[in-house]
Amino acid sequence: MRVLVIGAAGMVGRKLTEQLVRSGKVGEQAIEQLTLVDVIEPARPEGLAVELRAADLSDAGVAEELIAGRPDLIFHLAAIVSGEAEADFEKGYRINLDGTRALLEAIRLAGAGGGYCPRVVFTSSIAVFGMPFPDVIGDEQMLTPLTSYGVQKAICELLLADYSRRGFLDGVGIRLPTIVVRPGKPNKAASGFFSGILREPLNGQEAVLPVDESVRHWFASPRSAVGFLLHAATMDTAALGNRRSLNMPGVSATVAEEIAALQRVAGDEAVALIRREPDPTVAGMVSGWARNFDPQRAKALGFRAENSFDEIVQVFIEDEMGGRPKLG
Amino acid sequence: MRVLVIGAAGMVGRKLTEQLVRSGKVGEQAIEQLTLVDVIEPARPEGLAVELRAADLSDAGVAEELIAGRPDLIFHLAAIVSGEAEADFEKGYRINLDGTRALLEAIRLAGAGGGYCPRVVFTSSIAVFGMPFPDVIGDEQMLTPLTSYGVQKAICELLLADYSRRGFLDGVGIRLPTIVVRPGKPNKAASGFFSGILREPLNGQEAVLPVDESVRHWFASPRSAVGFLLHAATMDTAALGNRRSLNMPGVSATVAEEIAALQRVAGDEAVALIRREPDPTVAGMVSGWARNFDPQRAKALGFRAENSFDEIVQVFIEDEMGGRPKLG
Repeated sequence: MRVLVIGAAGMVGRKLTEQLVRSGKVGEQAIEQLTLVDVIEPARPEGLAVELRAADLSDAGVAEELIAGRPDLIFHLAAIVSGEAEADFEKGYRINLDGTRALLEAIRLAGAGGGYCPRVVFTSSIAVFGMPFPDVIGDEQMLTPLTSYGVQKAICELLLADYSRRGFLDGVGIRLPTIVVRPGKPNKAASGFFSGILREPLNGQEAVLPVDESVRHWFASPRSAVGFLLHAATMDTAALGNRRSLNMPGVSATVAEEIAALQRVAGDEAVALIRREPDPTVAGMVSGWARNFDPQRAKALGFRAENSFDEIVQVFIEDEMGGRPKLG
Repeated sequence: MRVLVIGAAGMVGRKLTEQLVRSGKVGEQAIEQLTLVDVIEPARPEGLAVELRAADLSDAGVAEELIAGRPDLIFHLAAIVSGEAEADFEKGYRINLDGTRALLEAIRLAGAGGGYCPRVVFTSSIAVFGMPFPDVIGDEQMLTPLTSYGVQKAICELLLADYSRRGFLDGVGIRLPTIVVRPGKPNKAASGFFSGILREPLNGQEAVLPVDESVRHWFASPRSAVGFLLHAATMDTAALGNRRSLNMPGVSATVAEEIAALQRVAGDEAVALIRREPDPTVAGMVSGWARNFDPQRAKALGFRAENSFDEIVQVFIEDEMGGRPKLG
């Protein structure tokens, strides 16, 4: 099987790649070719022979080149994050909408002669939902994004469904919860602090909290995100009908509950490293975000996440800190 | 006030134009300039001085030219109809999506210096909804289009909301019911027969019915459609919040109820002119269409339609047949 990962240099993309290289297969099928693409050339993973490319999907001809090898399975993770898409309107639409559309069009045109209909796993986001919505969002909730990023993701979901209905590709959209605890350095996502207030203290460093502790949000670990992607790659899509995008399972927690989980694993010393510095812009964006979900469809279809925030912290400590936090 | 009508040569566009020319104003504001645009040059209405243009919004530079005069009010009605968008995938996306996006972008760029933020009234469609949905669709129903046309309209709604939220324009999307009774010749819309089975018999001519009489759908007259557009042009959009598109009021009726209304006004002789000729393609498309709505938001905001199918037939006889059908 030929596998293409677009956005392979991002955090989730790197973890997905590691998993693909480690197992050498997707489901029961061996990976014959793995192509990794991002705007900066992705790191070369050890183990499997891979092709690396530095390319911007929204540049003319790039999508066609990527599809020329007719990959059987395409993970499309490339995106400008929410804060950047809000700050740079044109860049957000170019990367998040035009880039995705170029990919779908390249697939459609490659399959025009018949016989090519790849599985496309697209990372959407719970940013497709915006206030007002119920405390617990069900699978029938209408999409009311309040950020340009959320609008771009919602539009791509609609395109994915139409291209799937037409038989051009076999799409699955997964609406990722906010992924915590992100390893490494902060990115430009407005949601970055949800990871920072755990990651930095666990490493003995100060973190900034720009919102109130009462803020509630929806989370899953990077390990779960990779699990969602691989399950979406192998599931029977007949069960999706024309509704190709799914709310993923996760954990609903407040910032206070995050901090309590940090305290349990790393003590008061770690909690003391969180510095309150209210940021009205971030608080304003976050106030419109979804707080809790009842993702019955995804669960029935076999998607799984953590059951508590303590589990999410534990995954970070296992996967990123060799099992031992610096503090605690 | 400067008014721009895009898609002015279509049925609803012509009727809107007639109304604008007749009254010479929109709400309380006098029309200083009226520009009519369509892919074919619109007919010159009598009375008001108008500018006519034959142009395709999806052609490079056209949107910028149309916006150069900084119209205060823009009616965007231009679209490829559902049947054609399904038959010609590329044309549908080019006209219905790229054309609309070019218009929104031209407005955004014209307003980049500040001070320009026109009202944009966009005709969406109940084709943004697709099965499965409840018998009566409420204002919170998620968008699940099952045609490329419906997908294109749903995407444009999302763009309209984002451009409005950003302050680039002041958008209102109106999800038109199927408009009956359309005057003139059949168009390529899959919904055309809903008008044909009334219009042709009322004119003493045979009509084809491609679906079962039990098919239920959602209707309003051309007169109501013009009323929706003018109300959307003058309403206080503060009440919309970020939900810029509205289900319009209408009449829910089956084909059998349509035929009963025809019988009441034009007798058995007219009904006998309806020839049953099942068309699985049309029946398949129509089976996924919305049947009934509870459009509370639009009603509360002052939008009004007919209360019965008999009223809809009466509007056709008054507006298109000088008050007297050929039969009956």
